[in-house]
Amino acid sequence: MKTGRPFSTINKSLFLFVFFIGMFLVKAQNNGERPPNFVIIFADDLGYGDLGVFGHPTIKTPNLDRMAFEGQKWTNFYAGASVCTPSRAALLTGRLPVRSGMASNKQRVLFPDSKNGLPSEEITIAEQLKEVGYRTACIGKWHLGHKEQFLPTNNGFDYYFGIPYSNDMDKLSGKVYSDYWKRPNDSIKTEHFNVPLLRNTEIIERPANQNNITKRYSEEAIAYIKQNKDKPFLVYLAHNLPHIPLFASKDFLGKSARGLYGDVVEEIDDGVGKIMATLKEEGLAENTIVIFTSDNGPWLPFENNGGSAGLLRAGKGTTWEGGMREPTIFWSPEKIRPGVVSDLGSTIDLFTTFSKLAGATIPDDRSIDGVDLSGVLFEGKHSPRDTMFYYRGTELYAVRLGDYKAHFITEGAYGQFGEREEHKTPILYNLNQDPSEKFDIAKDHPEIIERIDSLVKEHQSKLIRGKDMLAERE
Amino acid sequence: MKTGRPFSTINKSLFLFVFFIGMFLVKAQNNGERPPNFVIIFADDLGYGDLGVFGHPTIKTPNLDRMAFEGQKWTNFYAGASVCTPSRAALLTGRLPVRSGMASNKQRVLFPDSKNGLPSEEITIAEQLKEVGYRTACIGKWHLGHKEQFLPTNNGFDYYFGIPYSNDMDKLSGKVYSDYWKRPNDSIKTEHFNVPLLRNTEIIERPANQNNITKRYSEEAIAYIKQNKDKPFLVYLAHNLPHIPLFASKDFLGKSARGLYGDVVEEIDDGVGKIMATLKEEGLAENTIVIFTSDNGPWLPFENNGGSAGLLRAGKGTTWEGGMREPTIFWSPEKIRPGVVSDLGSTIDLFTTFSKLAGATIPDDRSIDGVDLSGVLFEGKHSPRDTMFYYRGTELYAVRLGDYKAHFITEGAYGQFGEREEHKTPILYNLNQDPSEKFDIAKDHPEIIERIDSLVKEHQSKLIRGKDMLAERE
Repeated sequence: MKTGRPFSTINKSLFLFVFFIGMFLVKAQNNGERPPNFVIIFADDLGYGDLGVFGHPTIKTPNLDRMAFEGQKWTNFYAGASVCTPSRAALLTGRLPVRSGMASNKQRVLFPDSKNGLPSEEITIAEQLKEVGYRTACIGKWHLGHKEQFLPTNNGFDYYFGIPYSNDMDKLSGKVYSDYWKRPNDSIKTEHFNVPLLRNTEIIERPANQNNITKRYSEEAIAYIKQNKDKPFLVYLAHNLPHIPLFASKDFLGKSARGLYGDVVEEIDDGVGKIMATLKEEGLAENTIVIFTSDNGPWLPFENNGGSAGLLRAGKGTTWEGGMREPTIFWSPEKIRPGVVSDLGSTIDLFTTFSKLAGATIPDDRSIDGVDLSGVLFEGKHSPRDTMFYYRGTELYAVRLGDYKAHFITEGAYGQFGEREEHKTPILYNLNQDPSEKFDIAKDHPEIIERIDSLVKEHQSKLIRGKDMLAERE
Repeated sequence: MKTGRPFSTINKSLFLFVFFIGMFLVKAQNNGERPPNFVIIFADDLGYGDLGVFGHPTIKTPNLDRMAFEGQKWTNFYAGASVCTPSRAALLTGRLPVRSGMASNKQRVLFPDSKNGLPSEEITIAEQLKEVGYRTACIGKWHLGHKEQFLPTNNGFDYYFGIPYSNDMDKLSGKVYSDYWKRPNDSIKTEHFNVPLLRNTEIIERPANQNNITKRYSEEAIAYIKQNKDKPFLVYLAHNLPHIPLFASKDFLGKSARGLYGDVVEEIDDGVGKIMATLKEEGLAENTIVIFTSDNGPWLPFENNGGSAGLLRAGKGTTWEGGMREPTIFWSPEKIRPGVVSDLGSTIDLFTTFSKLAGATIPDDRSIDGVDLSGVLFEGKHSPRDTMFYYRGTELYAVRLGDYKAHFITEGAYGQFGEREEHKTPILYNLNQDPSEKFDIAKDHPEIIERIDSLVKEHQSKLIRGKDMLAERE
């Protein structure tokens, strides 16, 4: 239809029609866009103050520093518990460990002779994501049951490679352990710890060679990413270190000014850098969310073989901030808004956040403690989390509400930081002003204590406690 | 002379000749290049742990964080003393304050009724740089003598704008001070402190309005840079804050989650950002070296109105690390190699480093304690500094040699951290492994103690002590 006019009314209409169809198709494609990949890098017993960007003077973590500068550094981010097993259960299920039964007052964690593990009724992040088409891998420490039915491959993970519990378990000599903290450490050998290394459900190495375990974990994660990039994936990389005993491969051994502990953290940092580089090389970085954090605070009785909680009080095993607040970084170039986030967050929130982002349905037949953090990550919104429940075993020791934390019970751990003490009037701190928990302001703020009290009552009235899965041993 | 050969031997010789002439000219031009400008931003009583990039959870310092990421973050950098007056004397003269007489066992600092100040025989950085054509400004706190002959304009600075001593001096009510640390602080007003604000040697405001003093200092620095950019310049911007009493201007007041102390540090950070922006806008950034640091550790008895030393032990007034190690950042885009430097450095080194860079001659008629840090800044070399002398007044309490620090005397300050104790066998820490000074390893390392002992002997045998300039009061 020639009209002589270069851009006739009809042509214009046609153009607009095609334009809007085009826009619609683009929009539709966006809606059908591949959901993001997730990489969770989880350290073991790393203290709040053990990364360069969180203030350590001599542990060099250039990759995590860069990740924090390019991404979001979270400074009020909590593990779900102050020891290993319940903390990991919280991360994977999005629930307080007291609900799943993965918390106990008899045994703080699972041991090689423990009978049980994560109950099959619990739904893990991996199960959630697998449901909507993700490939899922668990690499590293599991610690939610080492019998076959409890292993990652029976909890939503397509693939497992790692040591199923702590790297100091199965020790061949009792002396090794009790002498461990004494310097020098040359006498500590990987052969002293008869821990198994599994691929899926098979033991492939025993004792696992821990000298290069950190490196092998990072390499496994990278290989998995490369091999599974055609589908959305979840990689849960849970390092066994810097939990004692400490080992580093020869490229890192003796290199850090901080000593062996620094060597170990620097090797983890190196792995983080290689994972970031792989994601960039494979064109996946913009559609992958990487989070780095740890399971609980530093194990302080081991002196220089344990980490540092920085300015926070106490460490692993306690409900002081040093026990549960973790150095946390979220990274996804172009997607996550760079900055420092001092709003509250928790590993407990990853279940909900990742489920929402992946389009998986949050189960409605149980209490989920997580909230969706994606508004903070992508839109600069405030965190929907304004409380934190600090359990020790199955007892609630402290509660944070906004700026404030009330301690109902305080207790040290591993022979440090004092005996158990119940407080008739709770101790109250403003954590944003007084992160080191030094200045009790309970007298000035009875109204805050009242609010926290009623929060606790409500929480406890609805709480359904899971059967203790940690107590029974063979 | 045609030869038919496109590039004859003669042509080649001619080419090489011209090439080398060219190279020579380029080199000559480089040699005649304008020496760098220097901006020293010096906080007062800021703790090691009070910046985001040094690990504070809720004080937001995006400008200093960026400065650290783009520049060098120094994690083992020391003030020359653990209190104000001697620390400032050390920075400006490049000498231990015990040499200049700006350290005393009778008065720790200068007061409004002090008789003396920095002796005229002392040579300041400003005098050094003025000698080679620099414009020089001191903006902020001086605290090296408030009588006219001791003021900045009689110590090498072309210009002075600031409060000549601490912002809590000249207080109009004794009660204000002793009640200061009690919350809330609404009762503390700038009018309670009758401190003068000077331009050059004239009092232009009394009491100085401290509500906006931080902002005014940053603005003065920016104005000075803009007005004096045609010559090389030194700007020594010494904030009076976050020394108590704390004040912030209305854009910052009540904004920080850390409370008033956070408001103050965030306003300082904002000023740093504006100075960096000015340097960029004026095309000066690549030829300006900016350093940010502080005069001594946090004043801890003031609770939330004092800062945090992060993972370091104790604070202001002590020779523990928290008293003298400072959060330090060097920045000069394209010039300073970005990274974290854990080698030793000190404010005492600025005199030597800047003199060398400016082409000024280091005086040879006196002991200078500084070393040249430019190899670290520009070439990634190791720091030539391997010792640090920790004086309290005129007494040597501790010495650092490489990784190790030996305490001969320990003592708390301001009623905290214990009484004076002399150690027959010094306490020995490996600071790179044990930055919190927890684990005495003296027994394991008698050879280190021996080396430090002989270092001390050598140091003391050559030490010429200056006449005490702090003791006399009117």
